[in-house]
Amino acid sequence: MHGANRDYNGMDGVGEQAGERAREREGTAAGLNDTLARLVASLVVVRCSGHLADGQRRYPRWELDNATLQRLLSAGVGGVILLGGSAAELRLRTRQLQAWAATDLLLCADVEEGVGQRFDGASWLVPPLALGRLHGDDPGAAEELAERYGRCSGREARALGLNWVLGPVCDVNNNPANPVINVRAWGETPASAGALAAAFVRGAQAEGVLCCAKHFPGHGDCASDSHLELPLLPLSRKRLEAVELPPFRAAIAAGVSSVMTAHLLLPELDRERPATLSAAVLTGLLRHDLGFGGLVVTDALVMEAITAHHGAGEAAVLALEAGADLVLMPADADTAMAAIVAAVEQGRLKRERLEASAERRRLALASLQGNSLAPAGSVAEACPEPLGSLAAASCRATDASEPLGPLSNGPISADQQLALELVQRSLLHQGGRVTLPAGSPGAAPAINLIRVDTALGCPFLQPTAPALTRATAAGFRTVVLDGCSPSPWRVRPAAVSDPGAQEPGLAAPVAANGTSIATDGPLDLPRLGEGPVLLQLFVRGNPFRGSAAGREPWEAVIRQLQASGRLAGLAVYGSPYLWESLQPLLEDGIPAAWSPGQMPLAQAELLAALGLGTPAGRGVGFTD
Amino acid sequence: MHGANRDYNGMDGVGEQAGERAREREGTAAGLNDTLARLVASLVVVRCSGHLADGQRRYPRWELDNATLQRLLSAGVGGVILLGGSAAELRLRTRQLQAWAATDLLLCADVEEGVGQRFDGASWLVPPLALGRLHGDDPGAAEELAERYGRCSGREARALGLNWVLGPVCDVNNNPANPVINVRAWGETPASAGALAAAFVRGAQAEGVLCCAKHFPGHGDCASDSHLELPLLPLSRKRLEAVELPPFRAAIAAGVSSVMTAHLLLPELDRERPATLSAAVLTGLLRHDLGFGGLVVTDALVMEAITAHHGAGEAAVLALEAGADLVLMPADADTAMAAIVAAVEQGRLKRERLEASAERRRLALASLQGNSLAPAGSVAEACPEPLGSLAAASCRATDASEPLGPLSNGPISADQQLALELVQRSLLHQGGRVTLPAGSPGAAPAINLIRVDTALGCPFLQPTAPALTRATAAGFRTVVLDGCSPSPWRVRPAAVSDPGAQEPGLAAPVAANGTSIATDGPLDLPRLGEGPVLLQLFVRGNPFRGSAAGREPWEAVIRQLQASGRLAGLAVYGSPYLWESLQPLLEDGIPAAWSPGQMPLAQAELLAALGLGTPAGRGVGFTD
Repeated sequence: MHGANRDYNGMDGVGEQAGERAREREGTAAGLNDTLARLVASLVVVRCSGHLADGQRRYPRWELDNATLQRLLSAGVGGVILLGGSAAELRLRTRQLQAWAATDLLLCADVEEGVGQRFDGASWLVPPLALGRLHGDDPGAAEELAERYGRCSGREARALGLNWVLGPVCDVNNNPANPVINVRAWGETPASAGALAAAFVRGAQAEGVLCCAKHFPGHGDCASDSHLELPLLPLSRKRLEAVELPPFRAAIAAGVSSVMTAHLLLPELDRERPATLSAAVLTGLLRHDLGFGGLVVTDALVMEAITAHHGAGEAAVLALEAGADLVLMPADADTAMAAIVAAVEQGRLKRERLEASAERRRLALASLQGNSLAPAGSVAEACPEPLGSLAAASCRATDASEPLGPLSNGPISADQQLALELVQRSLLHQGGRVTLPAGSPGAAPAINLIRVDTALGCPFLQPTAPALTRATAAGFRTVVLDGCSPSPWRVRPAAVSDPGAQEPGLAAPVAANGTSIATDGPLDLPRLGEGPVLLQLFVRGNPFRGSAAGREPWEAVIRQLQASGRLAGLAVYGSPYLWESLQPLLEDGIPAAWSPGQMPLAQAELLAALGLGTPAGRGVGFTD
Repeated sequence: MHGANRDYNGMDGVGEQAGERAREREGTAAGLNDTLARLVASLVVVRCSGHLADGQRRYPRWELDNATLQRLLSAGVGGVILLGGSAAELRLRTRQLQAWAATDLLLCADVEEGVGQRFDGASWLVPPLALGRLHGDDPGAAEELAERYGRCSGREARALGLNWVLGPVCDVNNNPANPVINVRAWGETPASAGALAAAFVRGAQAEGVLCCAKHFPGHGDCASDSHLELPLLPLSRKRLEAVELPPFRAAIAAGVSSVMTAHLLLPELDRERPATLSAAVLTGLLRHDLGFGGLVVTDALVMEAITAHHGAGEAAVLALEAGADLVLMPADADTAMAAIVAAVEQGRLKRERLEASAERRRLALASLQGNSLAPAGSVAEACPEPLGSLAAASCRATDASEPLGPLSNGPISADQQLALELVQRSLLHQGGRVTLPAGSPGAAPAINLIRVDTALGCPFLQPTAPALTRATAAGFRTVVLDGCSPSPWRVRPAAVSDPGAQEPGLAAPVAANGTSIATDGPLDLPRLGEGPVLLQLFVRGNPFRGSAAGREPWEAVIRQLQASGRLAGLAVYGSPYLWESLQPLLEDGIPAAWSPGQMPLAQAELLAALGLGTPAGRGVGFTD
């Protein structure tokens, strides 16, 4: 289906369409412009919220309001990327968008960790790196799980009206300091990343959605974030062939429908233009050398790496000139479309080039037909019941004293089983169970110290989260630390050299309020309270936010708590690198665990391993 | 429609039904039991989440899972109270519930401050006390607004599939220390509360939903919370007639369909039983003396005030014995239904009594027929577009530097106009605009100090909230204080009498970690940072949480900040009592404002008045 296609005329089976379009070109100038405008619009993908009402938008700065959306869709804009909202809302939203659209839409989302990562109520799976780690021990098992991961993601995406999953990430996370890829990668080696990304593609596309290998030619070996700046990778072509390109080759061999570009400057390939805007990369490397004939889509043109150097119109034109088919999230859609139309009228862009892109788009959509969607309008179709039911169990099993009542959920669905299996297989645990001082829970003080990037709006730390409820049930008082909380740190005395050795390689720790943190005994423990401390760290590399946790002295905190016998237990959710830096410091018998996942299900299983509450997968209503 | 009805035989126009039921009674014992079981079930109202999937439940302890829900509904349970989820999900959910049900359902929610208070995406209105305050100055305006408030609430509730609004609160908030009613009341005097509650009823019921006057005979003069314990009101009948009962009389005169009981002990009326379980109150006072013939529903029987003293079955039987028609949220539905059936079989409860209740229920539902619902299945019907669009403007207008782009929302809907008008009319402002030290925003440190009850899951403090974004845009760094943050307080030195006078009547301030707070200069300012402080306090009496803020020394904080010239501004959202205690302490010229509302729209208008960002009601896209 995706053979090497370098020009429009060489494409099979499109003679009819070619003729039709030629006839259209012979029409009036006005008709020609309308057709050109619609052609251009069909290659643009804009962003909106999964919520139905404008007022519910989480990112109103980036998400179009409904009036603008309707206008653009009726003008022929061909794709929408969605973020935010529940699974139930998404189903209504995708239908609403298609109703507004003048053409069959590409409806996509960054479904990298299950649909539930983005849309509440669907399955939320552990990050891909969990399987990347497993691949080293048991490649067959990891690949089987990755394919099921793809199937789950594709099936749920399709059920909710999406037809294009913007995954798998094909970047190789061989740089632990990478703030933007990190646990999103399927592996830290080319072999594992490639095998697992390909398995994901097979699974998801078998369920009737398009996939997208990203971010070409590879964003793994990077210590900066293209959302914030333009990273530079001084890698040779030879090095790319050895490390970055293999996963993309594997995904292409597996039939991936689309490839997304990276906003990276690779001077060895193109001294001037980032990959997204580089003919050397998109046409030379991807189309010619790798032989990819499917859809090439840019990463979001609204990202700082692009907008810092190019206007909305110019960036879009450059991307198409370089060989992209689809323009994702132009900084301004009208500006971008007008600029592209002007570029065609001025002869800078060939119309045939755009028609070839439109044809690839049409073929991609056509490849999905024949898969039957659930009947429109049925409530069951709006939100398939098994979605998220296992998360229910993880929340229900939080309180050992809670009467379970007449619960009966029946057998677990395949997706629920997968989500649980992924959590269980990737969980690391040592040191036994958390114990508290004798006495009823709550009698003696004990602190549940939780660290997250941002508490407000945190999707995995709603009030029912097991990390909160299970600790409370066991008698801990919760203290939450994030970027907006009063500083919990002791201030570093000025002009005094602290006896505590600063961790080599660690930037001098600084609190959010700007003060330096004492390297010895960094936590202001009296301020937090008395008693044993259960430390729960939610840390993963995140786009935009980077590794704020890298400035926080958690190693010194572990030492501080152990020195006073106050470390009741350690839970790390997300970054394996943080776990690997803290775990060696733990005294024998300190209960500790790591999960790559941060979602409630992962919290439930991890805390159960630490002796707090029951595992989500056992209990009333589950076949075991 | 609601005449005085003391027994089944006296009801007009029910001869046919009486005969039919008599024939049913002559059936087999098994048939009799089935009919009895269904009759009993029809009088029970259970609780579920507005979300579709079990895993999305916010309160899994209180909300039935779908399997149990389906079972109970197919067994004839006659009502469901919903909480949680978006407006879009609610529409699907109500249809799902009705599909599962064996009978026409009562579908209700505590829609006291607009549907948007409970279901994201609908209109979220200022608390009723805002109009109670206005009534003192301009009763006509307040009553007109209250009727529009009712219309908005009723219209949106109906559009989303609800047919029963559990409001208006008819309690008179004549006790500022009331932690559970507070701003939920329509007035602090019987006259204002009555006039406005009646206006609300007229508006809402005209839109085709049932209303509910609560909590009978009046929960206003109370310093404790019946969610947590059984309050005692030592009020005479004479006093009740003067203060508590008039709003209920007014609502009944306005035709309110139902009345909800209060879990209060009024020894002057009944020495033993709380109102909910008292024949003297429900039958003697409400039915006989006030002549109410509509539906009497209990407050939730799962509340501590009841469960501390009665089992699930007994509480339900007692309530029906006392004269209630409907049992809301029994601690366990199956137990309650079995107990009621047994009580009938044992002759403790007369079957005719229950049949009279069922007939009232039937008449109430019948009164709603003839109002046409939006066509099922249409997306527009699932979530009417105007809902919440004004909230969009308040979030969009947050960043003065943000390019507004091609926005066009058209004219504001009546509901949007009402929400805005309510915020504008209830906003109090003094002292001008917040100014920062010269220099670009962010150059000099400045702190946006926000206080909320609970940051995690806070519905009005999502990351896009104007209280966050507008302050950030102006150069402030945000610090959020809540029950789980590290203590921001200075510890009170032991055994030292502080020169700062402790506020009379204020309990000694205590931090969440148990330490005493210094009364002079209570905030540990160096810990929070340098620079001017914009103080934003979100405080209102809340069920369950009471007045935690009552232990926080905000008066002393105001003094502390002013003494060092660091108070950049004060915003109080919610409690007029807190505003009235702090406002007199402000130095001339300190920018300060109060809104009774905490929602984003209120934040936007208040901060605009303080010079931070533009008002939500002005700007691109709004007719002005």
